[in-house]
Amino acid sequence: MSKSKLTITPVQACSAAPLARQPLSPGDAAQLASAFKALADPVRLRLLSSIASRTGQEACVCDVSDGFDISQPTISHHLKVLREAGLLISERRASWVYYRVVPEALQRLSDVLLIESGAGVSA
Amino acid sequence: MSKSKLTITPVQACSAAPLARQPLSPGDAAQLASAFKALADPVRLRLLSSIASRTGQEACVCDVSDGFDISQPTISHHLKVLREAGLLISERRASWVYYRVVPEALQRLSDVLLIESGAGVSA
Repeated sequence: MSKSKLTITPVQACSAAPLARQPLSPGDAAQLASAFKALADPVRLRLLSSIASRTGQEACVCDVSDGFDISQPTISHHLKVLREAGLLISERRASWVYYRVVPEALQRLSDVLLIESGAGVSA
Repeated sequence: MSKSKLTITPVQACSAAPLARQPLSPGDAAQLASAFKALADPVRLRLLSSIASRTGQEACVCDVSDGFDISQPTISHHLKVLREAGLLISERRASWVYYRVVPEALQRLSDVLLIESGAGVSA
């Protein structure tokens, strides 16, 4: 069975407005903080970027291991954190697990941080 | 002396391209991870949003304490973390410290997460 079907995508489900538009609710803040926590690690950011910048925004663990001076189990752990945050989905094909970026999740985080023109004009 | 003059703004100084355009360098990844770490806390996100959504994107500690069931020293600690990450600047006026959002820093992080059309089409 494809692991991607079991993935929870909390960031996409978050309906928070840009944080400069109105104060975040505690629930939205918890959901977003959890996604930012997944991004709060240099190795995870590089892994995510390595996958996101490839054809189809997809890669096998074997593809992304190059250039990282850490063990494959550690890489797999970091990829799992990104998957659990809803930033990647994974799918097993034969003996390899492939990871694909969830563009809507990154877009959601990007939108939340966006400073819109006219933001912060009301108290 | 204004504390804002002493603030380091690492995020703004980061010249990383959107992570879906090209793999992040280790240096850029470290800088960005540090900023995302500051956002990886629900209270800090709510404080940042509370300030960002106000007139002038500025607030005194006394203004933002309402609605948080935590002590003022804890709030001040969280604001300091956001300041050290370059997301806020602070300035003392009389006996109060005022915090103002650094819109360029949030914009920087938003841009890095942006999924551009045509991203990920080359290996």
